[in-house]
Amino acid sequence: MIVVVALNPALDVTHQLGHVDWAGVNRPDAVHARPGGKGPNVARVLRTLGADVLLAGLAGGHTGNELKAALAAAHVPAVFADIAGETRRTFAIVDSGRAQTAMFNEPGPLVSEEEFAAFTVLFGEAVARSSAVVMSGSLPPGLPASTYADLITMAAEAGVPALLDTSGDALRLGVAARPAIVKPNLAELEALAGRPLPTACAVAAAAADLRAHGADAVVVTLGSDGLLTVTGEDSWHAWPEPVIGNPTGAGDAAAAALAHGLVAGTPWADRVRRAAALAAATVAAPVAGEYAPADYERALASVRVTSWEQSCR
Amino acid sequence: MIVVVALNPALDVTHQLGHVDWAGVNRPDAVHARPGGKGPNVARVLRTLGADVLLAGLAGGHTGNELKAALAAAHVPAVFADIAGETRRTFAIVDSGRAQTAMFNEPGPLVSEEEFAAFTVLFGEAVARSSAVVMSGSLPPGLPASTYADLITMAAEAGVPALLDTSGDALRLGVAARPAIVKPNLAELEALAGRPLPTACAVAAAAADLRAHGADAVVVTLGSDGLLTVTGEDSWHAWPEPVIGNPTGAGDAAAAALAHGLVAGTPWADRVRRAAALAAATVAAPVAGEYAPADYERALASVRVTSWEQSCR
Repeated sequence: MIVVVALNPALDVTHQLGHVDWAGVNRPDAVHARPGGKGPNVARVLRTLGADVLLAGLAGGHTGNELKAALAAAHVPAVFADIAGETRRTFAIVDSGRAQTAMFNEPGPLVSEEEFAAFTVLFGEAVARSSAVVMSGSLPPGLPASTYADLITMAAEAGVPALLDTSGDALRLGVAARPAIVKPNLAELEALAGRPLPTACAVAAAAADLRAHGADAVVVTLGSDGLLTVTGEDSWHAWPEPVIGNPTGAGDAAAAALAHGLVAGTPWADRVRRAAALAAATVAAPVAGEYAPADYERALASVRVTSWEQSCR
Repeated sequence: MIVVVALNPALDVTHQLGHVDWAGVNRPDAVHARPGGKGPNVARVLRTLGADVLLAGLAGGHTGNELKAALAAAHVPAVFADIAGETRRTFAIVDSGRAQTAMFNEPGPLVSEEEFAAFTVLFGEAVARSSAVVMSGSLPPGLPASTYADLITMAAEAGVPALLDTSGDALRLGVAARPAIVKPNLAELEALAGRPLPTACAVAAAAADLRAHGADAVVVTLGSDGLLTVTGEDSWHAWPEPVIGNPTGAGDAAAAALAHGLVAGTPWADRVRRAAALAAATVAAPVAGEYAPADYERALASVRVTSWEQSCR
């Protein structure tokens, strides 16, 4: 079983319109509400990949109840510690006439020490039955930046490897707790490195630096340029054919594929190929965080994977 | 007690931002969720006026629960018949940098005959204890256009006068059921008359026509031009000093003031003065459907009320 942590999940509400009046009253053609936030996205992709998955998170209020019901409807097993605050919403306004989307992400609820302590009990029980843990996304207000590091340490004490996908201090402190894989995107890696990384060699050097600080393997997602991976043994660049679509959730699909490969012990060259293909298939799908199996098969056939070692020397 | 009907209430979610990126990711500075839709707005204003009020409506799903909790927090007594569908949300994006607001109004849930029958039981019990009924807003999908007419007839059989504030066929059929007051805005009256009403005399003639079709009194809200009222005895034009602000909910404030005056038996000249002043105070308030008592007092002193009778002859 793979445990996916969701400390700051969301209910994603999408309004679809043919043409938006930004200064007037609009009546959406269609309204969708679905589980959102990086953790739920990763869990849904893992379910679609056929993995045994358990989402473990924090939820509260009416929106928290709606999130739980939406996860049950999507057949994603989940356990939540209750919080007094209200789970956040995100609103997406899709303007199909202008081919643009505006996102409005509410801040997360304040989480108390006691609420997080109740979560760690659930987490400990889940980890004891798991073969990997995925930690994705931002931390809600009230939790210290060391939160993911503490959870990685808890998992390590149970002999369970962790994949970390976050940013800022939570990423920096998490790396020091020695996760099996960290998966920053380019902007997150640049923020951590404190400098722009204009070339693939600069990215590879910054990724190697994260390894030196504790991560066992580093996978950097580069948008349409695919994935750059640095492990203890080798480095790989995987890039798919260009895909037009909605990049939201592509990083979560890559995280899901990497966790899946981690549990299966898939060789790295194949692992990054699958991650890049799954991310590309997610971009091609109309709904963020979902993909069509045929798109995945097609992307899998077209991804190019090259060993990176020699290129920077 | 005044019963306020809310067949299609909403949870109003407002995001406030300094500058909106309509093609990107936004993080709102503030998020508010409050009871919305015309019925809840009227009920809140009546509460602030000191009236004994009961909101009677239809609500369902997680958003319905959130609406009920928000009404309780606002100290608005309410009874709801449960529906299987999900209560709608409205979503307002306030862009303070551009001084503009985009509204996104979700469609209402489908209501079944059985669900409406359960509502009429609640409504009948409430009306038996009331001195007036207010019916405001659109009907949710599934309910026939004769719905308000049927409720007005139920109230009349209990000897209780009704105020109707709706549009289209629901207004046309409702007028025939002989409500005490109908309160269309200019656009609604023009739609019903089937012609533009470019002058105050044309508005007064169309209002008189609604009286001929069954309404006892007609109050037309004209935005910054105030209110034009035609009763069986006299006609009045009430207009406030110009106010800059948010006109959302001004019509609901006028409806609340008119219902309040109906119950108190306030003479019409004073009734329209109060309605115009309350609408103006609502425009001046930052949050739709609320007002500051000092703004109301100031507006009350400045509203001009003129008898209309002679002007069109």
